[in-house]
Amino acid sequence: MPNMPNDDFLTEKISPFNVYQIKSVEDVLKSLKYCGFQGRNLGKALDVLYNMVSSKNILTVLTLSGAMVPAGMGEIICALLERNLIDVIVSTGANVIHDLVDVFTDVGHYVGNSNVDDNELYRHRINRIYDVFLPEESYLKTEKEILLIIKKIFQEKSIDITPSEFLKKLGENISKRCILSIAAKNNIPIFVPALSDSELALDLIVYSLKEDYEFKFDILGDIMKFGEIIKKFEEHGTLIIGGGVPRNWAQQIFPLLDQIKKMKTKGYKYSVRIHTATEYDGGLSGCTISESKSWGKYSSESKYVSVWCDATIALPILVTGLFQRLKII
Amino acid sequence: MPNMPNDDFLTEKISPFNVYQIKSVEDVLKSLKYCGFQGRNLGKALDVLYNMVSSKNILTVLTLSGAMVPAGMGEIICALLERNLIDVIVSTGANVIHDLVDVFTDVGHYVGNSNVDDNELYRHRINRIYDVFLPEESYLKTEKEILLIIKKIFQEKSIDITPSEFLKKLGENISKRCILSIAAKNNIPIFVPALSDSELALDLIVYSLKEDYEFKFDILGDIMKFGEIIKKFEEHGTLIIGGGVPRNWAQQIFPLLDQIKKMKTKGYKYSVRIHTATEYDGGLSGCTISESKSWGKYSSESKYVSVWCDATIALPILVTGLFQRLKII
Amino acid sequence: MPNMPNDDFLTEKISPFNVYQIKSVEDVLKSLKYCGFQGRNLGKALDVLYNMVSSKNILTVLTLSGAMVPAGMGEIICALLERNLIDVIVSTGANVIHDLVDVFTDVGHYVGNSNVDDNELYRHRINRIYDVFLPEESYLKTEKEILLIIKKIFQEKSIDITPSEFLKKLGENISKRCILSIAAKNNIPIFVPALSDSELALDLIVYSLKEDYEFKFDILGDIMKFGEIIKKFEEHGTLIIGGGVPRNWAQQIFPLLDQIKKMKTKGYKYSVRIHTATEYDGGLSGCTISESKSWGKYSSESKYVSVWCDATIALPILVTGLFQRLKII
Amino acid sequence: MPNMPNDDFLTEKISPFNVYQIKSVEDVLKSLKYCGFQGRNLGKALDVLYNMVSSKNILTVLTLSGAMVPAGMGEIICALLERNLIDVIVSTGANVIHDLVDVFTDVGHYVGNSNVDDNELYRHRINRIYDVFLPEESYLKTEKEILLIIKKIFQEKSIDITPSEFLKKLGENISKRCILSIAAKNNIPIFVPALSDSELALDLIVYSLKEDYEFKFDILGDIMKFGEIIKKFEEHGTLIIGGGVPRNWAQQIFPLLDQIKKMKTKGYKYSVRIHTATEYDGGLSGCTISESKSWGKYSSESKYVSVWCDATIALPILVTGLFQRLKII
Repeated sequence: MPNMPNDDFLTEKISPFNVYQIKSVEDVLKSLKYCGFQGRNLGKALDVLYNMVSSKNILTVLTLSGAMVPAGMGEIICALLERNLIDVIVSTGANVIHDLVDVFTDVGHYVGNSNVDDNELYRHRINRIYDVFLPEESYLKTEKEILLIIKKIFQEKSIDITPSEFLKKLGENISKRCILSIAAKNNIPIFVPALSDSELALDLIVYSLKEDYEFKFDILGDIMKFGEIIKKFEEHGTLIIGGGVPRNWAQQIFPLLDQIKKMKTKGYKYSVRIHTATEYDGGLSGCTISESKSWGKYSSESKYVSVWCDATIALPILVTGLFQRLKII
Repeated sequence: MPNMPNDDFLTEKISPFNVYQIKSVEDVLKSLKYCGFQGRNLGKALDVLYNMVSSKNILTVLTLSGAMVPAGMGEIICALLERNLIDVIVSTGANVIHDLVDVFTDVGHYVGNSNVDDNELYRHRINRIYDVFLPEESYLKTEKEILLIIKKIFQEKSIDITPSEFLKKLGENISKRCILSIAAKNNIPIFVPALSDSELALDLIVYSLKEDYEFKFDILGDIMKFGEIIKKFEEHGTLIIGGGVPRNWAQQIFPLLDQIKKMKTKGYKYSVRIHTATEYDGGLSGCTISESKSWGKYSSESKYVSVWCDATIALPILVTGLFQRLKII
Repeated sequence: MPNMPNDDFLTEKISPFNVYQIKSVEDVLKSLKYCGFQGRNLGKALDVLYNMVSSKNILTVLTLSGAMVPAGMGEIICALLERNLIDVIVSTGANVIHDLVDVFTDVGHYVGNSNVDDNELYRHRINRIYDVFLPEESYLKTEKEILLIIKKIFQEKSIDITPSEFLKKLGENISKRCILSIAAKNNIPIFVPALSDSELALDLIVYSLKEDYEFKFDILGDIMKFGEIIKKFEEHGTLIIGGGVPRNWAQQIFPLLDQIKKMKTKGYKYSVRIHTATEYDGGLSGCTISESKSWGKYSSESKYVSVWCDATIALPILVTGLFQRLKII
Repeated sequence: MPNMPNDDFLTEKISPFNVYQIKSVEDVLKSLKYCGFQGRNLGKALDVLYNMVSSKNILTVLTLSGAMVPAGMGEIICALLERNLIDVIVSTGANVIHDLVDVFTDVGHYVGNSNVDDNELYRHRINRIYDVFLPEESYLKTEKEILLIIKKIFQEKSIDITPSEFLKKLGENISKRCILSIAAKNNIPIFVPALSDSELALDLIVYSLKEDYEFKFDILGDIMKFGEIIKKFEEHGTLIIGGGVPRNWAQQIFPLLDQIKKMKTKGYKYSVRIHTATEYDGGLSGCTISESKSWGKYSSESKYVSVWCDATIALPILVTGLFQRLKII
């Protein structure tokens, strides 16, 4: 027998999206909240994100995977950093090197095509990222520029450093606008847990071989450093783009803090997740935030929304809506 | 050896999405055209769609599957019809009955939740569509209202009619704003090839049993009728939401016209497709427009773009951008 | 505080898949039941399916969408029908016409390639279905053969019939092994709710134009006929391949029977679903069986498993395992 | 006009899967090669894999992401290693720690359920991986066992080592059957490029805090070490499970070797990829092998097949088929 009246389920009618009443991107998102499916999730995401970024007590961690910079999403990250809306970045190495490519080559990525002869592209030394082209030449130019900075920063050839500290030093020595330079200026750490998996790591090996550098990266040190930042804030949230290592690395900090009895806080309290992976294969990229709660990565009362959508659609819409709500634009 | 210079591949740089320069939804879409991935596809979709709907010589066919009306997308369809931007609809039966539910119950769908006890919902007789709730009561009220119209329209109990003609008559007898009434008023046919697969069909069976109606639907007649419409236009395009029967039924008309030697025209020339299915399983819902070209469903020179995105995100964004470009809003 | 002991959650250890202990396909499936993710689901599916097909009291409904016959899955359906393991088929029109193509052309589908120039395929009049090629010539030959049968079956040009009766008559007049002929012989009805959406319908229109046939299909009649079959059995199950119209048409019968007060039974009690669609877009193809319970399409105690896997992998494995368990092979 | 005859496209008919002719899993795969869609890909994968593993001149690299060990796939990896069918593993840290959990707790993963209250699981300290449960207690026991080995291996508290060397030492000190112990015994290196992203890294931090260990991991050193292995072989292949860091790290070695002019060989020549990600979002996990060719990661003549399927289905089937073809079982 029903043990609660129908009214408890039927509290609010769907309010169909009325295009005539839309003026701004924020209007779109406000409207979608009362529609269904992923549109509703995207609409709700703005509320959670706005709440996260507009409170000083909430540490907002952006996790970044997928080829966001090649797809033209780097400037959005820059804007978020420049307005101090993000407190920590956890990224793939790829997005870092692509940011460096763009700053050193005045955008080194090209509008390409996913339906091409990849063998011919290879003969031209043009690397393809779905429908974006990245000529090897952009990489080579970047490799040289990074080396110049490294020579400037480090007096000795033997370098013992955490990845985040290394990236901070790089950023401090870039004058033009890019993710690394803005992050460095605004004291926003960039963690790259899988640094060895990227063209940046390959460049470092080239420097080792050609210039006798010896890089030692203290990868556990960055975990501790991140833990110290976490402990300084009362509440925490994630803005997850994709999944992969950045998502998990950012999330595992709470189980660690629990293990070493350093903290009462139990997990992130907020999350906006933009994903394309599904949970059916048991992989971390697609697992639900709810699953992460069982691990103590999110608190039992956390407020979160997952938007199943390519980030090149969801992120620009969401950030435009956010900037409109914040009256920045 | 390369047989074309790099310049032929590297013609245009990615232009990163700059949130500071965005004022409107149309701006978002214009910007995304020079980014990558599905964002670019969504940006390009506006150009193709604008071209289709703004030319009088192009017949624009909207194919509609997925629970668009329950998710609050019905009013968008109404706006497109009311502005005569769509010439033909091919739909699932579900979207038709949901449109009728909304017009007869002043929106009969509710903001629900995908994480519920479905057994309890059943005890309350609340039907769930992902995160939208549709109480059985809304269906029952609608069943009664449709019967009233049927009694008004048809003097005899034996009814021999095409599904599109039946839906037109229903629409003509609805005074309030809904997809069916606007379509009827603007003489836009609604084809429902799988009419027997929907609550509407179940209602018709109820009328048969309780009121002795006998409905005969001339399902091949609607194919011929659609063929006649196709032949009146020089060029043709599709706006495909989802896939399924509506997509294929709309597309198969060209192979038919070819088979019966009725037409020189070879396939649709334009298409915007919003889909979530992939092509990997060989199913029609996910197959590429290119695959459809091998069948003669699209012409070899056709201009098309597929956007891999839930329609509750892509459609409102796209139609808002379209209405802004058309200066309707 | 925990209100149930850990033991209640931790009842059975994962038993890693041990390849050395595998002899048969059934062994694979038995082993996978104690592994995780979709492997486990596939393993469990055999138990549910075996239970369904081996009980005389359970009506087993196979719903068939996706291009199963072109992909070489037709013979599996034949084997299931021939052993009377399936009681009812609900299919797309495509699978029916492809079955006819194969029987009249001694397999008219070819091993193709998904990475081809579709414009060139069109010039050759070769229709592509992902990586399968279907030359138009196979269709033309089939069109002629069907016409011969129609001329034989029907004395009059005006034909008023349900789709299932029409397909039964076709099947009765085919002597060679195929889905339609075996189904007819074993009195297994084939329902095609969206008959007008297929090459078969196009053929019927050709016959109408060239030979003056007039086909009237009683599409509501088939719903009633299916309802009568349902009522004869105590329990019911579905084997769902894909989703689309076949899945929903098979499922909506219970809400109908409830509406017309014809039945106490509340929904299917068993289901094996093989799907590639996700539930995130709110579409019926991807919706969970649990969601279908809220509609009364499945009973609250139903036993079901969904396997997220392309059917061309899951179906052959599952049916081979079933035939091994049944000692047929 | 057609410039090649139809015969060139229509060379081989689909050969429908005939369940009556199947005896073994290898039979299933042989049959599926002449069917369509992912079934065909799985069938073809056996040929490519068999070719790779049975040639002494081909280095076979297994890349491992996704929670393979918790899902019961670890014993398959053990069998592959034990038979020396795999030469190198590139893995996530998760699969390594889960292997250690299983060896130290006599399988520490449990058959769970994806439809549970995650808050309650957390109260019980049971971590969920989709439908697999991993009690925190299994982790704690493992943490202690690893520490015992570390104490045994390293005389000093300051440890400067590559991740692969560290894992080898661990494996050498485990007597029971597991991935790490077999790999160590058979001299098969295990590379974990993102070591800091896993419970294993968290354990190392615990040891640092409680026992004053200081771990320095030479993450670039492992790239060089992998490069040396690559150079010893004439030909190379990948067996890719999932995507993520392991896939890319294994692939980037060829662009590196090209950059440092160390090698003539241009990319892997063989690949079997089992994936669930799609290419539409531009992410590396879903990108095609063809795309990787543009980067020089695969040679232009490489033979590869991608199977879109959850690995918990595709991998056991494929490896069973392989072991049958190799007459191991």
